[in-house]
Amino acid sequence: MSLKKDILEKCKNAKEAALQLSFADTDVKNITLYELANDILMYKYKIIRANKKDIKENKISESMLKRLIVDEDKIKEMAGMIRSVAKLEDPVGKLLQKTQLDKDLFLEKISVPIGVLACIFESRPDVVVQISALALKSGNAVLLKGGKEALNTNKAITEIIRKSIKDNEGIPVDAVQLLETREAVKEVLKMHEFINLIIPRGSNKFVKYVMRHTKIPVLGHAEGICHVYVDKDADIEKAVRICVDAKCQYPAVCNAMETLIVHKSIAKVFLPRLAKQYRNVELRGDAETRAILKNVKKASEKDWSTEYNNLILSIKIVKSADEAINHINKYGSGHTDAIVTENKKTALRFLGFVDSSSVMWNASTRFSDGYRYGLGAEVGISTNKIHARGPVGLEGLMIYKYLVKGNGHIVADYTGKNAKKFIHKKCN
Amino acid sequence: MSLKKDILEKCKNAKEAALQLSFADTDVKNITLYELANDILMYKYKIIRANKKDIKENKISESMLKRLIVDEDKIKEMAGMIRSVAKLEDPVGKLLQKTQLDKDLFLEKISVPIGVLACIFESRPDVVVQISALALKSGNAVLLKGGKEALNTNKAITEIIRKSIKDNEGIPVDAVQLLETREAVKEVLKMHEFINLIIPRGSNKFVKYVMRHTKIPVLGHAEGICHVYVDKDADIEKAVRICVDAKCQYPAVCNAMETLIVHKSIAKVFLPRLAKQYRNVELRGDAETRAILKNVKKASEKDWSTEYNNLILSIKIVKSADEAINHINKYGSGHTDAIVTENKKTALRFLGFVDSSSVMWNASTRFSDGYRYGLGAEVGISTNKIHARGPVGLEGLMIYKYLVKGNGHIVADYTGKNAKKFIHKKCN
Repeated sequence: MSLKKDILEKCKNAKEAALQLSFADTDVKNITLYELANDILMYKYKIIRANKKDIKENKISESMLKRLIVDEDKIKEMAGMIRSVAKLEDPVGKLLQKTQLDKDLFLEKISVPIGVLACIFESRPDVVVQISALALKSGNAVLLKGGKEALNTNKAITEIIRKSIKDNEGIPVDAVQLLETREAVKEVLKMHEFINLIIPRGSNKFVKYVMRHTKIPVLGHAEGICHVYVDKDADIEKAVRICVDAKCQYPAVCNAMETLIVHKSIAKVFLPRLAKQYRNVELRGDAETRAILKNVKKASEKDWSTEYNNLILSIKIVKSADEAINHINKYGSGHTDAIVTENKKTALRFLGFVDSSSVMWNASTRFSDGYRYGLGAEVGISTNKIHARGPVGLEGLMIYKYLVKGNGHIVADYTGKNAKKFIHKKCN
Repeated sequence: MSLKKDILEKCKNAKEAALQLSFADTDVKNITLYELANDILMYKYKIIRANKKDIKENKISESMLKRLIVDEDKIKEMAGMIRSVAKLEDPVGKLLQKTQLDKDLFLEKISVPIGVLACIFESRPDVVVQISALALKSGNAVLLKGGKEALNTNKAITEIIRKSIKDNEGIPVDAVQLLETREAVKEVLKMHEFINLIIPRGSNKFVKYVMRHTKIPVLGHAEGICHVYVDKDADIEKAVRICVDAKCQYPAVCNAMETLIVHKSIAKVFLPRLAKQYRNVELRGDAETRAILKNVKKASEKDWSTEYNNLILSIKIVKSADEAINHINKYGSGHTDAIVTENKKTALRFLGFVDSSSVMWNASTRFSDGYRYGLGAEVGISTNKIHARGPVGLEGLMIYKYLVKGNGHIVADYTGKNAKKFIHKKCN
């Protein structure tokens, strides 16, 4: 079968599976998830063996290895994650709104799954487990496409998932399918007739590529250019703590700080204090910063819109909170930005006017994460301005439909002279 | 100024206006809307004069004239619509969710406007009023681009809207801007950096064009291929009433029935009864239908996926409700579909498995409409599977942001050995 036909076939199967899955009982879904958690543990050596093969067969950089490797601890984490998804409330079939339109005529707004998801990701095999668990629970079918360097691992995990689904009646096995070749990505991006949402996980470049080459809605973020603004009314201890955490606790992730903005009236005291804690961080500053701190490189215009994902930080000094807000809205990526201040009025202005998915007050940008927000597992972090924004859990995989239940009602009775009137009474 | 520069300028102004408007007081927005309703009435002759000019200057077909013409009655309707939007609850700044993450660490999920909308529409000048009112109330800036044949009318109305905004401080005037040339559409579709959502209103062909030529999310529907399925357990009186209403009450609209599906065991009784009521309707049927009804043309494969928007109807006879469901999911457009049956079990199966934005039970497809659903005014009807589906009112123009309020909290404290634990306590 040609690649195109193969992908088309899988898409059709996914659409059919999605329809069946959208009606699966909560109990059936949860039992399947618990058994999957057991199966993942039971077949751990199969996964580890496949993973060792991947590591042996591919040229792997140090940083990639960290993401690719699956050991017993990681498998335990996977099982724990699946169980935590099983414990979440079923998001399907919720009565979101009920309105009585007239006598015997009711409108119901019900939560339903979106349909078919496609997740395209690099390196990390735990994404297979995470996305599959979230998809099953939310009643969505999913097509998974991982990186070539993790193919054996992803195949082993997907086989276990499909086995767990088969062992429990009530969920169609094609609810979870793996695509194996790199060429599959191009085809998937064209399948807008079957795929309702694409979730790309990987480098900025990769996510941008996906966004540019498909008509299917994409949920995610290309960049995480996060800021911390240290206001003139900041508590300096808190500011240092937060800036160290936001930059250094895990610099490779999207919610780490990339640019520090400091109010000029506090900069002389604050920056030297902070610099002492930043021994491994390369600093790049504007002229005012460099007048205060020695050995700071000059920040170029490009620095303000660069996501370093590394121990590099650009620093800008401003005259007001509004200047900070404007800088963030201009150069930021709408991901996560923070203010450190004891001044409530300034904080509320910042929280309101910074147009980002998450805005923090006296807390590290690193909190922006589905698990920390209490969403259970996370599909990803979205910087979209529609549908779902910020860390996205089960809720972001849902949409709704309207049901109208009548008794032979027709619109003609509600138009023209002697038109009947709608009562529009909220019932919940 | 070149067209491109002009559009870019307007987009920038809209983005700036959107940020200010997102914080406008509810009172300021409502007062502006009430004054706009007054101004629309006060300057009605200005609008009517401009409208007469449009009608005189353009070649207008009969059906287009009906949509284009603005008379005193239509202006009264516009004013009424603006007042009804003013009366709706302000959707901005709602606390959607509050979670305590830990001592002194709170997560808030707040409703915020999407940002900048662009509405591209044909003929109907009342869209200017409707979309502007909904945009102002929901805190979104809007760029409007109407048809060339309504340019004078649209300009007159937009001038009144901008005057009303100017007269009341607190809302930036560029919250509502009109684009005047046809070439502007192409430029607008490229402005993904500034425009967050496109709302196209017009012919299927036009909406499809917009969907195919932009990276900006599009809210709307290209087609309304709506079905009524008359089940074997249908009450025949209700079925006849509903089928007449769904096809004939206003055949040109998107929620009118295009295909009738009938269970074979009721067809012989039902179809002749219905045909008596369908004197002006051209019927096209499958072989089984033509065996029952005389003078019915043969329906081709193409008929099942055609939106006639006219007094034409295709008819199919099925052996089961599931066959009807499958037909609808295959050929329908996910807009609105109805079942007529007294059998609750069959109805619930249909309501569940038909994957459309609105599904009706013993009610006409024509009810699928923002006003009838009690949403106030309507932006349009969406067949998207993400963000907003079905008739879309104010809610579909909103998104949310997450705020985290802490007291110097850092993520390092919640990782590794002796990690603090999140409490994730719901506060509302």
